Amino acid sequence: MSLYTEITEQPERIKSLLSSQKKTVEKIAAEIQKRDIQYVFLAARGTSDNAGRYANYLLGALNGLPLALATPSLFTYYKQPPKLKNALVIGISQSGQSPDIVSVLDEGKKQNCLTLAITNDSKSPLATAADFVLNIQAGREKAVAATKTYTTELMTVAMLSTALNGNKSRWDELAEVPRWMKAVLKHDALISRNAERYRYMDQTVVLGRGFNYSTAFEWALKLKELAYVKAEPYSSADFQHGPIAMMESGFPVLAISPKGKVFESMYEMLKRLRKELSAELVVISNDKRALSLASLPLTIPADVPEWLSPLICILPAQLFVYHLTQAKGYNTERPRSIRKVTETK
Amino acid sequence: MSLYTEITEQPERIKSLLSSQKKTVEKIAAEIQKRDIQYVFLAARGTSDNAGRYANYLLGALNGLPLALATPSLFTYYKQPPKLKNALVIGISQSGQSPDIVSVLDEGKKQNCLTLAITNDSKSPLATAADFVLNIQAGREKAVAATKTYTTELMTVAMLSTALNGNKSRWDELAEVPRWMKAVLKHDALISRNAERYRYMDQTVVLGRGFNYSTAFEWALKLKELAYVKAEPYSSADFQHGPIAMMESGFPVLAISPKGKVFESMYEMLKRLRKELSAELVVISNDKRALSLASLPLTIPADVPEWLSPLICILPAQLFVYHLTQAKGYNTERPRSIRKVTETK
Repeated sequence: MSLYTEITEQPERIKSLLSSQKKTVEKIAAEIQKRDIQYVFLAARGTSDNAGRYANYLLGALNGLPLALATPSLFTYYKQPPKLKNALVIGISQSGQSPDIVSVLDEGKKQNCLTLAITNDSKSPLATAADFVLNIQAGREKAVAATKTYTTELMTVAMLSTALNGNKSRWDELAEVPRWMKAVLKHDALISRNAERYRYMDQTVVLGRGFNYSTAFEWALKLKELAYVKAEPYSSADFQHGPIAMMESGFPVLAISPKGKVFESMYEMLKRLRKELSAELVVISNDKRALSLASLPLTIPADVPEWLSPLICILPAQLFVYHLTQAKGYNTERPRSIRKVTETK
Repeated sequence: MSLYTEITEQPERIKSLLSSQKKTVEKIAAEIQKRDIQYVFLAARGTSDNAGRYANYLLGALNGLPLALATPSLFTYYKQPPKLKNALVIGISQSGQSPDIVSVLDEGKKQNCLTLAITNDSKSPLATAADFVLNIQAGREKAVAATKTYTTELMTVAMLSTALNGNKSRWDELAEVPRWMKAVLKHDALISRNAERYRYMDQTVVLGRGFNYSTAFEWALKLKELAYVKAEPYSSADFQHGPIAMMESGFPVLAISPKGKVFESMYEMLKRLRKELSAELVVISNDKRALSLASLPLTIPADVPEWLSPLICILPAQLFVYHLTQAKGYNTERPRSIRKVTETK
């Protein structure tokens, strides 16, 4: 099974990415620092868009860079792109093929912005359009659903942020990611045993906040693509502004809630969901209080720092979806209605 | 029923907003133009966040302004706000009470940015924090689910964009909005008659693109808040990058697809959904080809320009949810688990 192999090879891919691309990342960071960059303008779709959500928090928190997610139709259908003065324009795409993402970089270049492609194909149209290319070095991904290309995109973003930030101890933390990943992959048997419980789950919500807002979106996307579960991602704050009304007793809620600055707010929400609204919880965390609320608690190592937790938390989520897809009897390699490369305008 | 009254009074509220706030809007636009504003940084939650999505397209297309949606947790929990040099910082909130939104404006002011509050309460903490206040003049909204405060927020954004754009003919188009709204409110009986068909619908997706990406989010939010339907909004492009895999025969899809630059791409998606995937469609449009695909076609006037179509298209969507909520036997005024003013950090 390519999907399973691709999930389990992530620690190795991350390790080789870190050693092979560090110098390139530092060179690009130095170029960015030469310019008067005031914000980042980022274009991506699907899984790569979720890597963009991680960039939104990480570049904001560690590098003081505001980030605007591009609305590609302004560039393609409306042909009324905004003025991108002093923006760093980033496109993220595994294949580097989607015309809408390429068009945002083309426009950035036309407006004399610094442009950066993050892609798995250095010869793709996206890479060709950009001033700089960061190759995520994921190797060929055969399964239609992206897994290793998601975590290598996250790692690339984390390396860029670290190079811009200049705090050398962060590189040491990055070097620990493969070890933490290997530790969570050991939950495979536990997840496999418990997947059957969710065989008839056809809808759910996925909650995450801060850095793991990205993880909520990516877990939900895998559930939709592979297991055909209608899964909607939310920040715990947005969830309170309306959607919480649809909760019924026994409704399943998947949550990513590692220790960190937003933990207490997530924990308050999970307590309310479990105790007041009788939700069924699946929780990824390294805090015992959060894990104790869950029907299926998925533990990550205690020493994972919050800023890197999205790289670790997504692995049990991927395994959960993989085993659920098998329990439901669906094709893990080639989901219906979608292809590996989706070209949208 | 307050909710029904509030839906039907929208043409009058929009009319009085246009006449009473035009001068204030022009004054604020003049102040914005004096500064070297390079992008907009916007903070909002729930319904107001959907008005922010409209601003993202409108200020981009008509005013060349890129827009970044704020991630409030960077300001509240992480206390690592990004550098907002040359940003116009906008907060949108009906009540003006939510601490996370206020904290983004406070930080903008601290960093010497121009700050603008769009709110229904000129004495609220949000209004007090801002350099300028645009009052949406919606009057008291008694129902928990926002309707007239959403369209008055959209109108305020459209007026600001028009004042910045300087094209005087756009003011004439704005003056037509109440008339177009009255025309679509006439579908009330048709929608009421057809709501029962959806009595047992418990999940759906809502598709819109470009300007009506906002409408898709707002329709979905009303469905969740009032009718407890798990409704997920998508752009037709994002939908193809994975989520389309979960479509099954007969699955209901609600779509907003008026004439305009993105119409053909939406129409291709709707044809695929209907003909290849046997989806059931509810379509809001003024194009016969799109309407003919629908089990429930909801017509808007032929002469509505695309940039103002979100103000018109949301009315049949609100009526659809109102009558569906009644058909399901739920409380239209006070949905479970949520309150009128939600304060999040």
